[in-house]
Amino acid sequence: MRILLKDIKKIYSPEADLDQYKHIIIDGNKIESLVKKDALKINNFDKVINCKDMVALPGLINTHTHSSMSLLRGYADDYDLDRWLKEKIWPAEAKLTKKDIYWGAKLSILEMVRTGTTTFADMYFKMDKVAEAVSETGIRAVLSEGLIEDNDGKQGFNDAVDFCLRWQNEAKGRIKTCLGPHSAYSCSPDYLKLIRDKALQHNLLINIHISETKDEVDMMQREHGLTTVGLLEKIDFFKTKVIAPHCVHLNDKDIDLLKKHKVGVVYNPMSNMKLGSGIAPIHKLLKKGINVSYGTDGAASNNNLDLIEEARLGSYLQKVALNNPQALPIEDTLKMLTLNGAKNLGIYNLGEIKQGYLADIILVNIENNAHNYPSYNHLSNIFYASNGSDVDTVIINGKVVMENREMNMIDEKEVYHKVEKLTEKYHENF
Amino acid sequence: MRILLKDIKKIYSPEADLDQYKHIIIDGNKIESLVKKDALKINNFDKVINCKDMVALPGLINTHTHSSMSLLRGYADDYDLDRWLKEKIWPAEAKLTKKDIYWGAKLSILEMVRTGTTTFADMYFKMDKVAEAVSETGIRAVLSEGLIEDNDGKQGFNDAVDFCLRWQNEAKGRIKTCLGPHSAYSCSPDYLKLIRDKALQHNLLINIHISETKDEVDMMQREHGLTTVGLLEKIDFFKTKVIAPHCVHLNDKDIDLLKKHKVGVVYNPMSNMKLGSGIAPIHKLLKKGINVSYGTDGAASNNNLDLIEEARLGSYLQKVALNNPQALPIEDTLKMLTLNGAKNLGIYNLGEIKQGYLADIILVNIENNAHNYPSYNHLSNIFYASNGSDVDTVIINGKVVMENREMNMIDEKEVYHKVEKLTEKYHENF
Repeated sequence: MRILLKDIKKIYSPEADLDQYKHIIIDGNKIESLVKKDALKINNFDKVINCKDMVALPGLINTHTHSSMSLLRGYADDYDLDRWLKEKIWPAEAKLTKKDIYWGAKLSILEMVRTGTTTFADMYFKMDKVAEAVSETGIRAVLSEGLIEDNDGKQGFNDAVDFCLRWQNEAKGRIKTCLGPHSAYSCSPDYLKLIRDKALQHNLLINIHISETKDEVDMMQREHGLTTVGLLEKIDFFKTKVIAPHCVHLNDKDIDLLKKHKVGVVYNPMSNMKLGSGIAPIHKLLKKGINVSYGTDGAASNNNLDLIEEARLGSYLQKVALNNPQALPIEDTLKMLTLNGAKNLGIYNLGEIKQGYLADIILVNIENNAHNYPSYNHLSNIFYASNGSDVDTVIINGKVVMENREMNMIDEKEVYHKVEKLTEKYHENF
Repeated sequence: MRILLKDIKKIYSPEADLDQYKHIIIDGNKIESLVKKDALKINNFDKVINCKDMVALPGLINTHTHSSMSLLRGYADDYDLDRWLKEKIWPAEAKLTKKDIYWGAKLSILEMVRTGTTTFADMYFKMDKVAEAVSETGIRAVLSEGLIEDNDGKQGFNDAVDFCLRWQNEAKGRIKTCLGPHSAYSCSPDYLKLIRDKALQHNLLINIHISETKDEVDMMQREHGLTTVGLLEKIDFFKTKVIAPHCVHLNDKDIDLLKKHKVGVVYNPMSNMKLGSGIAPIHKLLKKGINVSYGTDGAASNNNLDLIEEARLGSYLQKVALNNPQALPIEDTLKMLTLNGAKNLGIYNLGEIKQGYLADIILVNIENNAHNYPSYNHLSNIFYASNGSDVDTVIINGKVVMENREMNMIDEKEVYHKVEKLTEKYHENF
């Protein structure tokens, strides 16, 4: 399948100036070429999309979420973290069936695609059902079974490894797998070493929550005399490629260690704000040259999966925390949402609009809404004024999964109906 | 004109439980009655709106913006405040013509109505043109000429008073006027006293920026040995009704004074974040019983006018600043966006869905988007997950100004075209 994206208003990619290009040709799942204004020869396309009201961006990459938690969106707002987990979220999660996991993932995928996300990283449980939802819907994902030692133990570990091997590169390569120890406070050093060794053996990424709350780091200090990052360094955990969501509470030594071991950091500003966890030192991490990408976290603590809004807030939060309006400017925002995300997930031909790269592209309508005027800077209007509802068309792996806001791979009404039906059991405890 | 809003999914008003009501009848510019499920007699309506996918809320109230600044949206992002004002905003404002002011206001009104705002408070200059835009578009507004002593002096003061008297209660009562001294650092105590006396004479509200930045309060301390609030108290400025946008940097004594004098505070979280001004102590102000409402500030420092997103961020910012996820919960959010806004503006029959109140009502579609599922709590989904693009229908003063997202009073394409044309002069300096 060869697709022509024709007469694009402007093409943005984080590391290139593409002002002279007006058209993009996709062949199969790759970007075949970028074409200048007058150099287009119309031939042999299976599909032509007119993009005269659109700008093109690389698909956005959500490097931390728990997709099936969308079923718990709005189920427990304005709670203290401890009560949130113990009284509401954990008891509710205990009731999640395989069917719930599948439809929860599908609800999140629907929301993500509609707001411009083309790849997401997920850590949860019963992940075969998430993988099935990914396969069917056309999105790209990096999936891991979340491991909590007391719950999952050796059997959970074995199952997680099996999951990785079973799904690696499935769905025409759209699925990647990784190992997902939940955290250094829910897994012992020995358990973490086991996971590290298996990751090294199979060349797998590890996805692990690090330093989300002050309580976590205080507990690690009490129990190990080290910060979370300090402990992980001590047990050589960073010998394999690690991606670390949150990283809210870090000292300077932690930051040096993250840099030294090329740990990828995921910034989840909305969840960190809503749960009152704190403000991650992202400006400092970026200055150090650490690769930082964005994540939404799950919809129970956000409560949406709109990366455009997430990034606006992420930028504004750094500005106010540092009393510095120059912190985390627009250019960093685009890069963190695309290329940095791809790098954090270890997918090195993704996150740019570039010949030979994977064809994950979004078209954003910049002429349909008051917040897009005046047009000094389309990127500013998108990231500082707009939201995911301006995303018009989404292409993933060379396939048009949404066009003109119509979903090609998901029956929206069916998703809504199933979700309402499946969550009836939670309404009584709401 | 009698309008029936029929079969509403749920009706929310900040101070009443309206669960048993399903229909709203509007007569002229007022709410005639709320009707229970089976008590509806269909007779004598000029218009019936089917609301089965909708919830009804009082129209949202934006108690601080500079509407014509929408022409400078994205014109100067990621700048230090000082450079932002001196190098970009002030030189650009000097070039704003009456025509610019009119079309800038219209662009903002369009964006506000489309995101559920039915009333806004504006302080800017050449305000006759804003008043004209308000008259034509059907929105409700509280307008003031902004006064900076060095620029405007005695003549500006006289003109501002004339503006107030000329436009008070115009546009079928939708326009109220007030006096708008810019701030205590741009107006001398004597000038402020002049304004206070005129406000008392004509029973006018005063709208004045207070304690937006630390620099401001430091300067006031240096020059007067008092905080901004302290100085205003000393000169008896609060003898008249005052609304104070920002209030970011307050000490405990300031807070006591605001409470004592019933000063209304406006929380502008996005602008305070983007400009790196700081985090207003809203949780504390609310606990003290101070009336706090929301404002977006101008689109040059936000960069949108979407009050739903503004309020989400306002809540999350308090939670993270205080490390307290219970701070500023959903119920407070609805009240701050509606009833508190009306009280701050001195319009006492507005901000609730209640018999005899002004018919400013928005219908929000809760069935068209993934982020609205599951449906445990519609208010949570609206304020914590949605944004203004879910607003379907907007009624102001009993008139349907937007229905099913179609604008009845504004030609959108014309606004976009004019704005692009008028802002050509800024593109060269961008």
